[in-house]
Amino acid sequence: MMKKTALIMAGGRGERFWPKSRKSLPKQFLSLTDDGRTMIQLTVERIRLLVEMEDIYVSTNQAYKELVAGQLPGLPPENILCEPMGRNTAPCIGMCAMYMAKKYGDALMMVLPSDHLIKYHKMYINALNDACGIAEKGNNLVTIGITPDYPETGYGYIKFRPEETEGNAYAVDRFVEKPDLETAKEYLETEEYLWNSGMFIWKVSTILDNFQKLLPAMYDGLEQIREAIGTQKQEMILEKVFPELESVSIDYGIMEKAQNIYILPGVFGWDDVGSWLAVERIQKSNESGNVVTGNIITIHSKNNIIQGGKKLIAAVGLHDLIIVDTEDATLICDKGNAADIKMVLENLKICNREEYL
Amino acid sequence: MMKKTALIMAGGRGERFWPKSRKSLPKQFLSLTDDGRTMIQLTVERIRLLVEMEDIYVSTNQAYKELVAGQLPGLPPENILCEPMGRNTAPCIGMCAMYMAKKYGDALMMVLPSDHLIKYHKMYINALNDACGIAEKGNNLVTIGITPDYPETGYGYIKFRPEETEGNAYAVDRFVEKPDLETAKEYLETEEYLWNSGMFIWKVSTILDNFQKLLPAMYDGLEQIREAIGTQKQEMILEKVFPELESVSIDYGIMEKAQNIYILPGVFGWDDVGSWLAVERIQKSNESGNVVTGNIITIHSKNNIIQGGKKLIAAVGLHDLIIVDTEDATLICDKGNAADIKMVLENLKICNREEYL
Repeated sequence: MMKKTALIMAGGRGERFWPKSRKSLPKQFLSLTDDGRTMIQLTVERIRLLVEMEDIYVSTNQAYKELVAGQLPGLPPENILCEPMGRNTAPCIGMCAMYMAKKYGDALMMVLPSDHLIKYHKMYINALNDACGIAEKGNNLVTIGITPDYPETGYGYIKFRPEETEGNAYAVDRFVEKPDLETAKEYLETEEYLWNSGMFIWKVSTILDNFQKLLPAMYDGLEQIREAIGTQKQEMILEKVFPELESVSIDYGIMEKAQNIYILPGVFGWDDVGSWLAVERIQKSNESGNVVTGNIITIHSKNNIIQGGKKLIAAVGLHDLIIVDTEDATLICDKGNAADIKMVLENLKICNREEYL
Repeated sequence: MMKKTALIMAGGRGERFWPKSRKSLPKQFLSLTDDGRTMIQLTVERIRLLVEMEDIYVSTNQAYKELVAGQLPGLPPENILCEPMGRNTAPCIGMCAMYMAKKYGDALMMVLPSDHLIKYHKMYINALNDACGIAEKGNNLVTIGITPDYPETGYGYIKFRPEETEGNAYAVDRFVEKPDLETAKEYLETEEYLWNSGMFIWKVSTILDNFQKLLPAMYDGLEQIREAIGTQKQEMILEKVFPELESVSIDYGIMEKAQNIYILPGVFGWDDVGSWLAVERIQKSNESGNVVTGNIITIHSKNNIIQGGKKLIAAVGLHDLIIVDTEDATLICDKGNAADIKMVLENLKICNREEYL
């Protein structure tokens, strides 16, 4: 089999874990599980079962380069690929594919989010291995789909054709955007839709062929970058070309238009850890249903998520709250209002209180 | 009229304002109103309308001497009377009466709590002036009673005889302990009970006569202290005699047994500021019913009491909570569970976490 590489996407700036996540410390660099390791550390550890450390790449932006290097000391420094600026996923993936083309000629490339959790590692590895097999055969683009438990409106969906298979995978009919609740319910009833996990598996040559065909202007820019790699002009060309690339997602720019796409159902306990509410799923609660970290006293309190540190937090008579204490900011939020945390951030932006963002 | 003096009782160690109040900083030294002045500062400011600064005394214990001196810079240092240890109110009041007897021979003595609020200062002063008149005439012990609005079970009550008056005051029938709710309701229906405000007015000579008659052993000890005042032995005698005095309240030791007690109804907007819930009565709330101090953002939140400082507190979807943030501890408490704050303190005591008490 062809050499396997992994590209871990770590440029995100999620706000849903405020105040623990900040512009300067997004979710992928936080520890949200019991064991103290950060999301990106867990991601690397998982994929190490399938990919050599020297073939793991992390794509991030310049601001997080030190964080990546600090949290992943075993990663070769040259494998941290920095975008000069955030331009959505297509330019980023394209640029990394060019790096890999230059280094390996061709290789299997697994694109993986840096901030999701997987419960069953062996099944995860088996699924990726299967996906690699399908990607290597012909010019297939493979994605991992998650069987929906409920009509989530926060994810993209992928429609597949149940009768058209390739190994354990199904041919993709189309990628669809986040649906409204009614539509999501219809999707579930058809049994022909899976959640889009953001994991993609393909050969470097296959994805670059698709860039050339579907995003030709971007491909030209990426070619210029490729030529400059390893030369003295590398930085200069990157700074000049990258900002001019179209800001478009890989889903919209490639996957919604490409041929030969297959989806492999992932049944390995996937969790995107999308908000503070997820902490209840991924950490153990005590007999009162409280999930607590830090220096906490709870009295007559049930089903709360409390994330503190050294400072004492006394919770008295509380139910169904999210409490997150950090050095300079404390969030106290009803679980039913978790989506309103973004209003706090909007408020802070309007008031130019950058220090809290 | 005889010289008027005030004894402000400031030895209390209230726990109901934890975590803002601590053993090292009890309620009387906190600012709980909008204007930033502490409870004891407000108390002194009020009584200054009737009593010269040099005739105002503050009784406290050694641990708070510096706090008193710091918060009341205009008070003569020798007017801070320190108990070697807390022995309830009777020994403390008796000792202070002895100091006053030595200094003035006789005087009118107003005993006042240091941690209550009064809304109408002129009516308050008029009431105390009336009380002084009644105390000066004969050997009367006068107390201020508050007309109950509702059957509070956290206060002592005083039964009076409506037909037996002395100026604006009524003869006291008896002092009663904190009642249960049923009994408190009955008290209100009789219209013959007032709340015990803890304010007492008498001549130094009258109260000492009562000590001699009703607490003769304590009186002997107080006499020894009196003789030592101003001598080299003062400290030594105080340290030796005071701890041996019976630990009993002035209510139980004297008022429940004495003759010639009168109660004057106080109608000056009294508030004992008994718990965090009182903050809603004494501070202005915003249009959402939130009473906030500090660096606070509220989103979809109503009727909360939030006391912060420099640290940002974001409240999202919260209703009827008490949130108090301090340097090393944060309380988050449902208003309906305010009485359970003491359980936090019990927990801290059991775990020997003295630093938070």
